[in-house]
Amino acid sequence: MTTLDEDLEDAAAGSDQRHPGLRRARAWLSRSVEPGTVDLWRYVDHLGPVVAVQRLRSGAAPDALRSLVGARAQQDATLADFQRAERCGARLVIPEDDEWPFLQLHALTLAVADEPADRRNQSDRTKAPVPPLALWVRGPGRLDELADRSVAVVGSRASTAYGEHVAAELGHQLGERGWTVVSGGAFGIDAAAHRGALAAEAPTVAVLSCGVDRPYPAAHGALFHRIAETGLLVSEWPPGSAPLRHRFLVRNRLIAALTRGTVVVEAAARSGALATARRAQDLGRSVLVVPGPVTSAMSVGCHELLRDEQLGARLVASAAHVIDAVGSIGADLADPAPRPESVRDGLSDLATRVLDACPVRIGVSPERLAAVAGCDVLEVLRVLPALELADLVQWTGTGWRVTPPPKEPRSGRRPGVAS
Amino acid sequence: MTTLDEDLEDAAAGSDQRHPGLRRARAWLSRSVEPGTVDLWRYVDHLGPVVAVQRLRSGAAPDALRSLVGARAQQDATLADFQRAERCGARLVIPEDDEWPFLQLHALTLAVADEPADRRNQSDRTKAPVPPLALWVRGPGRLDELADRSVAVVGSRASTAYGEHVAAELGHQLGERGWTVVSGGAFGIDAAAHRGALAAEAPTVAVLSCGVDRPYPAAHGALFHRIAETGLLVSEWPPGSAPLRHRFLVRNRLIAALTRGTVVVEAAARSGALATARRAQDLGRSVLVVPGPVTSAMSVGCHELLRDEQLGARLVASAAHVIDAVGSIGADLADPAPRPESVRDGLSDLATRVLDACPVRIGVSPERLAAVAGCDVLEVLRVLPALELADLVQWTGTGWRVTPPPKEPRSGRRPGVAS
Repeated sequence: MTTLDEDLEDAAAGSDQRHPGLRRARAWLSRSVEPGTVDLWRYVDHLGPVVAVQRLRSGAAPDALRSLVGARAQQDATLADFQRAERCGARLVIPEDDEWPFLQLHALTLAVADEPADRRNQSDRTKAPVPPLALWVRGPGRLDELADRSVAVVGSRASTAYGEHVAAELGHQLGERGWTVVSGGAFGIDAAAHRGALAAEAPTVAVLSCGVDRPYPAAHGALFHRIAETGLLVSEWPPGSAPLRHRFLVRNRLIAALTRGTVVVEAAARSGALATARRAQDLGRSVLVVPGPVTSAMSVGCHELLRDEQLGARLVASAAHVIDAVGSIGADLADPAPRPESVRDGLSDLATRVLDACPVRIGVSPERLAAVAGCDVLEVLRVLPALELADLVQWTGTGWRVTPPPKEPRSGRRPGVAS
Repeated sequence: MTTLDEDLEDAAAGSDQRHPGLRRARAWLSRSVEPGTVDLWRYVDHLGPVVAVQRLRSGAAPDALRSLVGARAQQDATLADFQRAERCGARLVIPEDDEWPFLQLHALTLAVADEPADRRNQSDRTKAPVPPLALWVRGPGRLDELADRSVAVVGSRASTAYGEHVAAELGHQLGERGWTVVSGGAFGIDAAAHRGALAAEAPTVAVLSCGVDRPYPAAHGALFHRIAETGLLVSEWPPGSAPLRHRFLVRNRLIAALTRGTVVVEAAARSGALATARRAQDLGRSVLVVPGPVTSAMSVGCHELLRDEQLGARLVASAAHVIDAVGSIGADLADPAPRPESVRDGLSDLATRVLDACPVRIGVSPERLAAVAGCDVLEVLRVLPALELADLVQWTGTGWRVTPPPKEPRSGRRPGVAS
């Protein structure tokens, strides 16, 4: 078995974009460096992964970069990682692969170019828009294809029954209409969204902040298993990695970048979902927010997002609204809210007044109608035929009255009363 | 007792702005013409109420205007109306009075000037922005003062317990902070808003589409009685008038105009509250909308208002948000949603990684921390003192670990887990 350094040397000597050394170099990076570091990504982008890893291991890389790798520089767990991945049916997808979601991640590539050169002025690592160096994926789905028509559905872990219901409905309806639901696999909204998509027999993608072989939380073992059967588990961290707290924040940029828009279903005043929403906006993605009762602490964050005029978040109340926002023009369209029609809508002002003047039970004369409606008798006589034709008034033999409603209840309003 | 025509003649001869004939002319208009008619308002504005009424009664007015008065031209119920008003403690407020809410209604005066001269191109009477010719008011409040710092709270009659709770809370908190709640006195949201204001012992104003002596709905008799004790019942229609359907729509422009903003609490897809909101926007008032569960039909209209980008409606979740939108700059300010603070917020990326690397129970060496955190031992030794000072890590005698939480439960999160 070749050592990492031998493999790297061999890869560096040739120009084979499929050389195993290339994949091994990226695997090594995925374990040795925390993702989200602007300078490290630039170093790898500039030199290529093989030479970058050689220099990081040999000590030839700049001090600032070597300190990022620190004590891990001399270690090599790549073969063990590949074996662990194979055991759970996972694989490493790298930018050199066709499956790499190049179009989606391009927003990160553009954004990282705007980061200043001086490390002290760069975004904090948990917020920096840095493309991933490699992605461990587990499941039958093709990452680029699943990401093409995808929406992130995120929200609070401490969700309410309302939030979970809405997330599951959204997941189900988006799945039914051929959209991939991307989320983080956490308790609460994430899980409800994944489950809704699975219930529609649609593939769904969980982007994790730990290894794809030991997804967190452990209580979601069965859920992750189902996701891995039809969709994908995705992670920047190698198999076996633990879900450290700061990794959740770093991971969030991937959820935002991989999707066309982020739907926040429930979020307290201080919630990771809000950070994901702001990242989505930074990357030019739609920020979509589901409102809730103003009496619910779990919707406070959602409402703050909607109140933030600079953010430009959009309120969504259904999957149709979501698709309306992220869909392609022409291909996807939301219907406006259904409005019951009323025959009164077409009436002139005068006809409305005459109709309102008609009593409900005993018929009255046109003269009486004119006095109540405040118009001439001739005008009353002019509009009565039209009202009768529309079945709104009837002649009782002695006078005019409102046509009584049919015996079976219908969804109309009481005449003469509205707000 | 003088007849109306004698009184008018006497008023026309003098130039007394307080002449009883002037008030009587406006009382006659309030019974003889449905409000909201552009041409009639212009006629009265141009000739003054006394001459306008004389010409309408004598037949000297243009045909188009005479037809508006129709069969009512020869009738005169002004003295009976004044008597009825007096019996219930009501009075007629006219534009010539100091109490007239001139500043608030100025928006209507400006808007009516934009209506075209040709009647066929004018707005429908139920939508036309026409100032009232006179207002019957009942209660101890002064109309102009109550309208000065006022907010309309409107919504569905078929409200839910959620909507009524929110409307009552808004009414109460707005009342407590010295704001007048204006609404329509209808079932549901209107009534809840009035009741909330009354519970705060604040005056509230009900703008009615029927006479102030027989407010509709009759089931709200006790509520109207309480409103009339501390605030005001207001109507364009004389005592005894019935709440005809089209009058609700005409009335809505007054609710929008008299207030600084309109809050829609609950509204179905087709609701009169939506019309009031759009009228408020047309008059340059704030349109404020309370969201609700997307699963509630009674919030569909609210969400459609918030989704309408041209409308520019603002989401509000509390009275503070409302006051923030309609209050004077400097005098009224809403606090941002409270965010629990975390000591982790101030940590550097490196310190966060070292903290996350610390185990919860058994202490470990700085070398081990460096390997897990992916940095140099020297860096670990550099950040540990700050973490210890912040009481985030502690030295066990053999190694470093996370400081255990105090015995009593506190509102923190589990370390190492976030979404």
